[in-house]
Amino acid sequence: MLSKSVKKSYSNKPLILVTNDDGISSTGIRSLVESMRELGKVVVVAPDSPRSGMGHAITLDSPLRIELVHLFEDVDSYQCNGTPVDCVKLAVNKILKRKPDLCVSGINHGSNSSINILYSGTMSAAMEASIEGINAIGFSYLNCSFNADLTAPKKYAKRIAKSVLEHGLPPNTLLNVNIPDVHYKQIKGIRVCRQAIAKYEEDYNERLDPRGRKYYWLTGKFINNDPGDDTDEWALKNCFVSVVPVQFDLTAHHAISSINSFWK
Amino acid sequence: MLSKSVKKSYSNKPLILVTNDDGISSTGIRSLVESMRELGKVVVVAPDSPRSGMGHAITLDSPLRIELVHLFEDVDSYQCNGTPVDCVKLAVNKILKRKPDLCVSGINHGSNSSINILYSGTMSAAMEASIEGINAIGFSYLNCSFNADLTAPKKYAKRIAKSVLEHGLPPNTLLNVNIPDVHYKQIKGIRVCRQAIAKYEEDYNERLDPRGRKYYWLTGKFINNDPGDDTDEWALKNCFVSVVPVQFDLTAHHAISSINSFWK
Repeated sequence: MLSKSVKKSYSNKPLILVTNDDGISSTGIRSLVESMRELGKVVVVAPDSPRSGMGHAITLDSPLRIELVHLFEDVDSYQCNGTPVDCVKLAVNKILKRKPDLCVSGINHGSNSSINILYSGTMSAAMEASIEGINAIGFSYLNCSFNADLTAPKKYAKRIAKSVLEHGLPPNTLLNVNIPDVHYKQIKGIRVCRQAIAKYEEDYNERLDPRGRKYYWLTGKFINNDPGDDTDEWALKNCFVSVVPVQFDLTAHHAISSINSFWK
Repeated sequence: MLSKSVKKSYSNKPLILVTNDDGISSTGIRSLVESMRELGKVVVVAPDSPRSGMGHAITLDSPLRIELVHLFEDVDSYQCNGTPVDCVKLAVNKILKRKPDLCVSGINHGSNSSINILYSGTMSAAMEASIEGINAIGFSYLNCSFNADLTAPKKYAKRIAKSVLEHGLPPNTLLNVNIPDVHYKQIKGIRVCRQAIAKYEEDYNERLDPRGRKYYWLTGKFINNDPGDDTDEWALKNCFVSVVPVQFDLTAHHAISSINSFWK
């Protein structure tokens, strides 16, 4: 599975796994590959089509396929019919000869700040890499268009990835990076922050199909009632790049004693 | 959408939403409905087929359908072609007339302890309800067979749900409950604990299809190197029902200052 060019250069440069959830043909992943090749040896393993909103889904009931494709100059790239998390698992277990030094996911077309992290395939792919003990970062740009100018997210992706390669991340921790939709020069800097406690107010668009049967499309409005100036939402609104350190221990440690009292 | 029987009894009993990820026809959800109808007015909204391993996936690119079905005596039940999280969103936004007092998910056929929580549709459904401000619990039984004896999980589901209806849960907190695969009488009690930091060692089973093309099945071994006696894994191994309070703020608060130093 591993091509000669990958094998050859494994020893002397950082090995960087690139993935995403918008699919291997998106402009976001292309920009991320361009940024990362300036930092190390890049291998791409990404979904063969868009897989937005897949969260941490894995494929249990159908066969997974990997195809070597030739989408990026001098970069080995593979497309997979699975979810973003499947891509990371397959990359680590079947494609790469050694554990990568870094896994980057994105650049997502649209925000993954606040509660969006739970639904995001981009962030779940990064989280899966972190579970595997790999330094991992998810990058998202607050502009959903495939034709957006990706100058700012590219530059910040490179800068932040470089820092992580230099310093490493604390154990069981990954980064959720969001870049505001403003010109590069308007960005005020990087802000390390917490996830805003916000949510969607859903609305389902109700329609009738040509056979008269009802169906629904999910729509919704993002509502942030978290007033903190230490949140990712605050940072983005104020033209900072938001960096949230993220963990996959979901225990609400502070709640253990009060819940213990239920059965005492 | 709402049937008369649901409307009638909304005011005087707790309203309990039941969902799962094994699908509406599983024996786990049937057991959960039987337990919950002793505590309140039950409405079921669950996937029309198994959706294990879906994590927090939502359906963005295809139409969602809901069908009223008649699977449970005196209980309004709806099947949906979406993910477990879609079921909860649709229940809250389109099916139920008011916010339920409790959402229970399961009883899952198989463990959702430790890192399994991330992949679990059962737990993501409960988490979605918690995001909506609803007290929520996911129940899982450490036996994967649809023919297993569900006496123990049924009794503990009722007991724990009753406590939550009485006391409520802290804000933005849900419960991940796992029941060991032993006889009811062998269970030593309930243990409130933290999520063990464990992971899977994946292995992909590699095969050739009849046309000679390679494909993969995900397999893997669960490895727990967390030595703590305060973890869900410890509790289950020692014949306790494990109850982990879970949060959806994924911020690694303890890592903020060290990561801040990268760019200072």
